[in-house]
Amino acid sequence: MVDFSLMAKNMRSSEIRRLMKLAADPSTISFSGGMPANELFPIDVVDELYNGLDLKTKRIAMQYGPTPGYPPLLEALKNYLVSRGISMEGQELIITTGAQQALNLLAKVFIDPKDMIITEYPSFIGGIAAFKSYDADLLPIALDNDGIDTDAVASAITTHADRIKMFYLNPVYHNPAGIIYSNDRKNRLLQILADKPYCIIEDDPYSELWFDEADKPKTTPLKVMAPDLPICYVGTFAKIFGPGLRLGWLFGPKDIIDKCELAKQSMDACTTTFTQVLASEYLNKGKLAPYLTWLRPIYKRRAALMLDALKATMPQGITWTVPQGGFYVWVTMPEHVNATDVLNNALAQGAAFVIGSAFDPLGVKNNSMRLAFSYTPEDQIAKGIGIIADAVKTLL
Amino acid sequence: MVDFSLMAKNMRSSEIRRLMKLAADPSTISFSGGMPANELFPIDVVDELYNGLDLKTKRIAMQYGPTPGYPPLLEALKNYLVSRGISMEGQELIITTGAQQALNLLAKVFIDPKDMIITEYPSFIGGIAAFKSYDADLLPIALDNDGIDTDAVASAITTHADRIKMFYLNPVYHNPAGIIYSNDRKNRLLQILADKPYCIIEDDPYSELWFDEADKPKTTPLKVMAPDLPICYVGTFAKIFGPGLRLGWLFGPKDIIDKCELAKQSMDACTTTFTQVLASEYLNKGKLAPYLTWLRPIYKRRAALMLDALKATMPQGITWTVPQGGFYVWVTMPEHVNATDVLNNALAQGAAFVIGSAFDPLGVKNNSMRLAFSYTPEDQIAKGIGIIADAVKTLL
Repeated sequence: MVDFSLMAKNMRSSEIRRLMKLAADPSTISFSGGMPANELFPIDVVDELYNGLDLKTKRIAMQYGPTPGYPPLLEALKNYLVSRGISMEGQELIITTGAQQALNLLAKVFIDPKDMIITEYPSFIGGIAAFKSYDADLLPIALDNDGIDTDAVASAITTHADRIKMFYLNPVYHNPAGIIYSNDRKNRLLQILADKPYCIIEDDPYSELWFDEADKPKTTPLKVMAPDLPICYVGTFAKIFGPGLRLGWLFGPKDIIDKCELAKQSMDACTTTFTQVLASEYLNKGKLAPYLTWLRPIYKRRAALMLDALKATMPQGITWTVPQGGFYVWVTMPEHVNATDVLNNALAQGAAFVIGSAFDPLGVKNNSMRLAFSYTPEDQIAKGIGIIADAVKTLL
Repeated sequence: MVDFSLMAKNMRSSEIRRLMKLAADPSTISFSGGMPANELFPIDVVDELYNGLDLKTKRIAMQYGPTPGYPPLLEALKNYLVSRGISMEGQELIITTGAQQALNLLAKVFIDPKDMIITEYPSFIGGIAAFKSYDADLLPIALDNDGIDTDAVASAITTHADRIKMFYLNPVYHNPAGIIYSNDRKNRLLQILADKPYCIIEDDPYSELWFDEADKPKTTPLKVMAPDLPICYVGTFAKIFGPGLRLGWLFGPKDIIDKCELAKQSMDACTTTFTQVLASEYLNKGKLAPYLTWLRPIYKRRAALMLDALKATMPQGITWTVPQGGFYVWVTMPEHVNATDVLNNALAQGAAFVIGSAFDPLGVKNNSMRLAFSYTPEDQIAKGIGIIADAVKTLL
């Protein structure tokens, strides 16, 4: 039985619903949804793929599939992972119902109540919710512009060696922090973790969404840099095709993934075959690369518009991260400013974002905001940021 | 952390995969899959529904949706439930990733390790797996042709009053038993449960699949007969549209469903929007009723062929249930016959089924078999049953 008072603290079902409602209201300029804008989905590709299916495949799409995933999709995904430099040796891959399910499965397999998970601060709200739902103790370690504080990681390991079960990291185009780990930081972190038994979750939804091709080498997964560590690499089609397909994946050491498969069987038996068939065609028909080529400059432009607007309107004492990819800018305000107050002021004027405490694994710190630039039409970004800047000013 | 030795006992991931492989092999006559035959899916309807969507709706289909479900689908489903006599008062509805997720969510919300769940014997393999994954103690109570043994239910409540948390029941066209509760039995059961605080899961995937319209009144849900009991009514599109859509639903008292929604948020955030959009159109465009009208006589014919073949080939001492709807016939053999031996003999000759112990919540009793007639082409049923009867004879 779940301790709902704990879960609710971070999950805020009604709050999220309120924000989704506001995001859906065309009169609110919303930076709250960590999602692609509806007009950016490749609907013409989906039409082509669906109508190109033969009758036999359409029937398979309507049927139960194997728990680990639709075999042609698993094959296509393995090819994709290999193309990114990932070794298949001793590893297994399963399709999950969104990356969210991958995080939940790993927690189910590894976590007993009060086991410790090292996370970043700030950290992904969905990861926090999944871990809390198994009554994990979360120990957040601060991020700076180059990644997690590795001295603090080393010290946490010394202090809590026996209680730690997992590390939860999102090194590339971090949600919500908007930063990317430097290679130097990744190497130092991997050195510290090299001889440790902890399961490392590398959550990597955004690495295809770089703004400049020259940055591509920075997006190299930890999984590639340290193939011998017990890293569970989590990915998703949510940001490179569409979240409504609910297709994520989980790739890691065979003994771990086999247990996750068993847990998944009791959780939802298998992931939607219908959308797995579409995603398989998407990869096999070479639709991913051209879509990303079209998509990246759009997000780059939205990020630039947001950064320009922040520079133009935010008062002194407010700082923010400068993303080189992904969806997010993380804004930090003086300690005495409460983001919930800012949000209420901004909402009254027609702009929305997600308050910082949602991304604090301890649910406390709230002098920060996550601004997603992915969802908002270009011509509304400056206006929306202006509203939020005004809301901040009245509270300084 | 899950006790995998316990889970594996009932889940048998590799065994299920082996059976699915055999079921997929066109040279094996398979009665093992509890699923519609691929050629029975209404693909022409899916084509029409998908291609009839406007651009805006296709975009919504690619996007995250609210955790409780795609609002137009929730509306359509509520109308459907009301048409079946179900009252909405004080109740809430959520869409789940298959009915399997509904069972898992209820276990997550209610079960602490060693809490007791009263189930039927035999019981649905997916329910057993979900409950075991939260370390529940299962107490199976025998079914006869009219339903669960209500004297045994009353006695179990007296003995285990404090440990019982839930009842798990599948009163209509039972999986795997193939029986339907009589109204008298349902009334007696509801009397016993009337003043008890236990959550009652009514799993109802098959009730639309009656063979004779005159039987329709027998399919009335417990939820209709006892609207004031804490009954959580679980349904699915798996048998009335397609399992590959992964669309189930969970309907029950608001306070319970709200907690399930919170748990679902951390489990997969939301169910596939893409297939929810299709199911919403399916209901709203009136496609369900004509599909069922076409489908029911097909299953009725398959059941009749199976029953004829059993009568013609099975040796004395073997008994079986006579389904009036649904997908299954449950065959009971003398106690000394082990269904695994029968299966291995039958597989060697090219026929497959699921062994009884998979449906024993205690994982022990194995002198029985589940034969699904839903998946098997008409012209193969007699031959397949003949092979199984021969396999039984060599072991008597």
